[in-house]
Amino acid sequence: MKPTASKASAAEDRPVGDGTSVHLGPLAELVGYSLRRAQLAVFQDFIVKMKDFALRPAQFSVLAIIQANPGLKQSQVSEALGINRANFVALLDELEHRNLARRAPSPDDRRSNALYLTPQGEAFLAEALQHLQTKHERRLEEVLGETGKRQLLDLLQKLASLG
Amino acid sequence: MKPTASKASAAEDRPVGDGTSVHLGPLAELVGYSLRRAQLAVFQDFIVKMKDFALRPAQFSVLAIIQANPGLKQSQVSEALGINRANFVALLDELEHRNLARRAPSPDDRRSNALYLTPQGEAFLAEALQHLQTKHERRLEEVLGETGKRQLLDLLQKLASLG
Repeated sequence: MKPTASKASAAEDRPVGDGTSVHLGPLAELVGYSLRRAQLAVFQDFIVKMKDFALRPAQFSVLAIIQANPGLKQSQVSEALGINRANFVALLDELEHRNLARRAPSPDDRRSNALYLTPQGEAFLAEALQHLQTKHERRLEEVLGETGKRQLLDLLQKLASLG
Repeated sequence: MKPTASKASAAEDRPVGDGTSVHLGPLAELVGYSLRRAQLAVFQDFIVKMKDFALRPAQFSVLAIIQANPGLKQSQVSEALGINRANFVALLDELEHRNLARRAPSPDDRRSNALYLTPQGEAFLAEALQHLQTKHERRLEEVLGETGKRQLLDLLQKLASLG
């Protein structure tokens, strides 16, 4: 650790479990690396806070998208979330098994399935969202500040539409 | 799409390939979801721009960490980067196979390997970093603006030290 710890230099080192401080070198200034580190920390907090719901971030996102777009096709949901097909099928199998979501033949494309929440899924998602907002998202807002969260979402939106 | 498209409402929908607009519902305002979407877009840009180097983001990070900390133990590098052990071993095997990095017995722990770049790895990383800065990172800076990038890195740093 450097003796003159400024805000910037604090981010250049990363402590690991055995007390060693690992220098990040050029990584500390790269957007992609910083995004990944933040995402891992935020997902970890999500998983811990949502333990009683046995809900991973991707499962939550799928339920939320289905609720906001009932009847959407499987392929549209997986594309909107950037989840690859194989992982998405397994994820959906689990949500069906837990009786939270269901597949039904798509009215306008017989080769494709349309997705819906079950009544149980609707109730589960409402409760999960409430818990998420008060336990997880509020914690992030404390860390970022209200203005900081707004700035962050705007900047992330710019990156998401990079393509 | 809502007729009164404000900055915020534009982020609430996500177009998919077939022209459908998927409503994001509560996801649009969640930090974790927004981080994930931005990270996927940024990593995609990284992969495209670094195609000639056949370098994925995780491989690049490992090379950069080894260069900044020659002789660091395998477990310390994987922990610093948040890569799980099995994936890390496979990743390192590939870097060794390409003669970019090498394992050597750790001087202070015989059960563990210390990691070094090869001379070829040093030259490769220098060239890759140069290419990355001019092709990928500069593009992100154009999208974010200079102040925006600084703000983003500061906010992401706050989230990364959430634990």
